[in-house]
Amino acid sequence: MSHPAPSDLAFVPFVSVDNMMRLVNTLGIENVIRDLASYIEADFLRWEEFDKTPRVASHSAEGVIELMPTADAERYGFKYVNGHPKNTRQGFQTVTAFGVLADVGNGYPLLLTEMTVLTALRTAATSALVGKYLAPQNARAMAMIGNGAQCEFQALAFKAICGIENVRLYDVDPAATAKAVRNLRSSGLKVTACDSSMECVEGAQIITTCTADKQYATILTDNMVGSGIHINAIGGDCPGKTELHRDILSRSDVFVEYPPQTRIEGEIQQMPDDFAVTELWQVMRGEAHGRRSDDQITLFDSVGFAIEDFSALRFIHNTIARHPAFSEQLDMLADPDDPRDLFGMVERRRVGEAA
Amino acid sequence: MSHPAPSDLAFVPFVSVDNMMRLVNTLGIENVIRDLASYIEADFLRWEEFDKTPRVASHSAEGVIELMPTADAERYGFKYVNGHPKNTRQGFQTVTAFGVLADVGNGYPLLLTEMTVLTALRTAATSALVGKYLAPQNARAMAMIGNGAQCEFQALAFKAICGIENVRLYDVDPAATAKAVRNLRSSGLKVTACDSSMECVEGAQIITTCTADKQYATILTDNMVGSGIHINAIGGDCPGKTELHRDILSRSDVFVEYPPQTRIEGEIQQMPDDFAVTELWQVMRGEAHGRRSDDQITLFDSVGFAIEDFSALRFIHNTIARHPAFSEQLDMLADPDDPRDLFGMVERRRVGEAA
Repeated sequence: MSHPAPSDLAFVPFVSVDNMMRLVNTLGIENVIRDLASYIEADFLRWEEFDKTPRVASHSAEGVIELMPTADAERYGFKYVNGHPKNTRQGFQTVTAFGVLADVGNGYPLLLTEMTVLTALRTAATSALVGKYLAPQNARAMAMIGNGAQCEFQALAFKAICGIENVRLYDVDPAATAKAVRNLRSSGLKVTACDSSMECVEGAQIITTCTADKQYATILTDNMVGSGIHINAIGGDCPGKTELHRDILSRSDVFVEYPPQTRIEGEIQQMPDDFAVTELWQVMRGEAHGRRSDDQITLFDSVGFAIEDFSALRFIHNTIARHPAFSEQLDMLADPDDPRDLFGMVERRRVGEAA
Repeated sequence: MSHPAPSDLAFVPFVSVDNMMRLVNTLGIENVIRDLASYIEADFLRWEEFDKTPRVASHSAEGVIELMPTADAERYGFKYVNGHPKNTRQGFQTVTAFGVLADVGNGYPLLLTEMTVLTALRTAATSALVGKYLAPQNARAMAMIGNGAQCEFQALAFKAICGIENVRLYDVDPAATAKAVRNLRSSGLKVTACDSSMECVEGAQIITTCTADKQYATILTDNMVGSGIHINAIGGDCPGKTELHRDILSRSDVFVEYPPQTRIEGEIQQMPDDFAVTELWQVMRGEAHGRRSDDQITLFDSVGFAIEDFSALRFIHNTIARHPAFSEQLDMLADPDDPRDLFGMVERRRVGEAA
């Protein structure tokens, strides 16, 4: 006698790192970023429908492990993400992530997916989506200070969504810049490696800062920021970590995802608690101003918000519905024939084994 | 050119439902419950070492989805669990669960496992462990009111840990009792099916209540509880759900896992906020009294606490280290050769694919 196979209800689709890479490469990375931006925009436009819980952080001497949940009336999502700055010394990643999307109606997980690659994609998609609302119309050149893991994703996102043609790269480590130049050589972007951040920002209408592992570093000073610039500040994203001099913040109109979180984690942790910010969802809905003039400095103080991960989970869930080959089925949920007979299910597995 | 295989660091051991059932059946369910109880006891004995976060709940009209995290200095664990009472009408389970154990030092997940079966086992192990401290020494018969999914696990746990020889079963639905009788027929327990809860408690030194889906039901009234009894109250475990008449609570010494949670979710939600309770970890450490006399009524107001899941995750993690065949390896974490070159990892996968 063989034990009965688990029903379809017991299986949760799983997207491995390898399948995520196949998905991205098959659909095309710029298409994926554009689609992610559409999902994120759609979710920002219905901001009030979300349950916005603060992230649940567990701090230790070495780093932090966080759960970032959010939900609307239909779907629940959460991301597990760690941040351990010293990990690279031991050959581990600083940040790894995975996430789950579930059905609010019955509580069943609908998707388990890697989210290290996916987070890089959604972060870039969010930046470029925000750039579409805030960057000068004629922006064709972007300076990128910090050429680490997020760099190329940002470059391609601004190409795909904002029409950026030139990227200018600078990093304190020339090897990082060389890596980015190499990775972007067939991207269709004109790529310029620069020897200083001052040289990097020359002629750029957008400045993206994405350095890492710096404590209150000031990688961009006030004199480097001309009028009319859009600043896309990615790197300052946790307490004690900022990239911009506060004089820049004072001169800029600052736009944020979710003020309660950004005031703790973003560049504006340097400013008083009542420092004026504009919420991006209101800009997207036309309920608040975005860019109002050619000489205004706009600044996106990006920290990454749970709703962006939720949008990314929705996108992957819908994508694997159309392309099931990018997923596997995990036997993760117990599914006894009779819900009251969990014990019998375990017992029958034994009998099946023995026979 | 083929793409490089992910390194070992990228893989997370996964215990599927099927592997959990194999593990339980191979090691023997009573051995597993005994081992789980040892892990739980060890963790209760070092209670102050844990980060005790309240669960993070997302409520909807249909049910709730919760994340239950906890951590010590070495390990971080969380459980995802839903509760959707109407699910069984659509052929879904009311409760499903999975969990993750991670390394606090580097934030990497060490284990992903199903937790529906595992939660049933750890709940029973906790009850019997508490019974070891609180039940009368001579207890040989247990009454079980409510013969649903938890029933058989409780019966075997009290057999394995407290030396129970006779179980007396009652459920409003005779089919549930018949199922439990069938499942326990080769357990070595003497099993008696009863026609009423009054008949069920006759001669029992321990009364376990584990009914489900009842709103403020009173399945045990004061006249049914004689002196010297230990009550193991499992079913009252969320706001609005209780099983015992409050007169029983007034007559009993009540023992709980974690007062802030039990006052909201447990039987004592019926009582004033300052109703006296004893914390079990203090009893286990000898810092508070357990049972002090033969006529005392002791009551374990069980709601299930994150540390018990943490203990269960530790147990499974250690078990698959010895028995790797009960796990699979999931490619869940991105592991680029150069942490700054996430993009290059994705890009090289494309080149590998094409070749």
